[in-house]
Amino acid sequence: MDIQDKKAYSEKWFSYLQSQICNNFESLEAKSRSSKKFVTTYWYKNIKNEGGGVYKILRNGNIFDKVGVNKSTVSGIFSKKFRRNIPGANSNGKYWASGISVVAHMKNPKIPAMHFNTRFIVTSKSWFGGGIDLTPSFSDFNEKKYFHSKLKKVCKDNKKNYKRFKLWCDRYFYLPHRKEPRGIGGIFFDYENGNWEKDFKFIREVGLNFLDLSSNIILKKMKVSYNKRDKDKQMYKRGRYIEFNLLYDRGTKFGLNSGGNTEAILMSLPPKAKW
Amino acid sequence: MDIQDKKAYSEKWFSYLQSQICNNFESLEAKSRSSKKFVTTYWYKNIKNEGGGVYKILRNGNIFDKVGVNKSTVSGIFSKKFRRNIPGANSNGKYWASGISVVAHMKNPKIPAMHFNTRFIVTSKSWFGGGIDLTPSFSDFNEKKYFHSKLKKVCKDNKKNYKRFKLWCDRYFYLPHRKEPRGIGGIFFDYENGNWEKDFKFIREVGLNFLDLSSNIILKKMKVSYNKRDKDKQMYKRGRYIEFNLLYDRGTKFGLNSGGNTEAILMSLPPKAKW
Repeated sequence: MDIQDKKAYSEKWFSYLQSQICNNFESLEAKSRSSKKFVTTYWYKNIKNEGGGVYKILRNGNIFDKVGVNKSTVSGIFSKKFRRNIPGANSNGKYWASGISVVAHMKNPKIPAMHFNTRFIVTSKSWFGGGIDLTPSFSDFNEKKYFHSKLKKVCKDNKKNYKRFKLWCDRYFYLPHRKEPRGIGGIFFDYENGNWEKDFKFIREVGLNFLDLSSNIILKKMKVSYNKRDKDKQMYKRGRYIEFNLLYDRGTKFGLNSGGNTEAILMSLPPKAKW
Repeated sequence: MDIQDKKAYSEKWFSYLQSQICNNFESLEAKSRSSKKFVTTYWYKNIKNEGGGVYKILRNGNIFDKVGVNKSTVSGIFSKKFRRNIPGANSNGKYWASGISVVAHMKNPKIPAMHFNTRFIVTSKSWFGGGIDLTPSFSDFNEKKYFHSKLKKVCKDNKKNYKRFKLWCDRYFYLPHRKEPRGIGGIFFDYENGNWEKDFKFIREVGLNFLDLSSNIILKKMKVSYNKRDKDKQMYKRGRYIEFNLLYDRGTKFGLNSGGNTEAILMSLPPKAKW
């Protein structure tokens, strides 16, 4: 398969997955007697035909305080400073990138915040990256076990090194200045460039697993009660989330460095937080 | 005067000013019928005698939602990566730094958030730096005029280039990803190393001017009424404040890179914000 086909297939998948996730989340809202829907915004990077994206945000629902589902496809030339850190970008800095990312901040503080992302990057090399992780404000042994075992299975089914992806996630989502992990981890991977068809199958299954596990975790807890103190605890946890995303997150830096749309990039920030 | 004396004089001044500012702010709270006082925390960088600081925070007052007044004196060796950007640090990376910083987030959204900082840094060179700036959520022509004219005067009285310091401030407190200034500016300066006694006099007068103008601005507006929508507007403005501090602020980076105390460094973050 040539690189143009790979680009087209991966981009179409990300678009399809975006619509599936949004449908799913809207039906969860409907189940909780809310009629809140996603609001869609299209953006274009520039007038030079370097792509853009579509981000969908649902706010003030009964399940979600704020959830963003963002799909974008951009191309261009990396700045000289930035390209040093990107495989295959050193010669001319040319890149193409398509991906989907989801960040969900829940109304009920007993339900963890969720993050999911998959992407296909093309420079003079090409690879997949992505991950799923949870940020609960309250620990829940069974939920944690369910979550990690599901990720373990999708890795195993696709002959991917779950342990390595889990460790990568733990190391990545860590706040050194707080000496705290951001949440309970999950999987994080990058530079996956073995057999393209197999990698693409893995990427699709990671997405389908997110669809599945996000619904299951929410459905299990959507009726769990909480009080003002619980909500407050979530607010402080969100403060840490913001610190991580603005101080350390590579995706945020990539976005701001590649002329991405600020609203789309910072959709990851919770609607409200405390320090 | 030798460098040890310069260190001792500047550090004593910063400590004195810290107590004056806290006294002032507590008396403003008292005037608004609150008995809220600063809570003081001492911290030490490590057991190697590389200094530490004392930070004072007042929360949930009738004037201040949160105000931090932080004084610290630290020394050590800069990491190789960091020392490239610091004058006089390239040979061995040794540094000594003392300074005071204040960030005030107001309860009344009609009163601007205030930031003030002065510092004395010693590597193989030595210099003063600092600044004052305001972040209002509502524009106020007269307040802005009063504020800038006061800063202009203190610069003029000390033969400092007000225009340069004002421009520096405007350029520094700017959010490129939002194409927005953080606030209405003020003055920002660094690497001041002319006649030490004159520079030190300027530093003291900048501090006294902050003492004076912060009180005047607060006193003028502490009884101005506001509603929920006004408070909400302030919450979104604070979101931008957080974006600036975590994405761009040099002081935050310096603090986290020099083994500073995280709580003291991030005391600049507002108690609550929205996106």
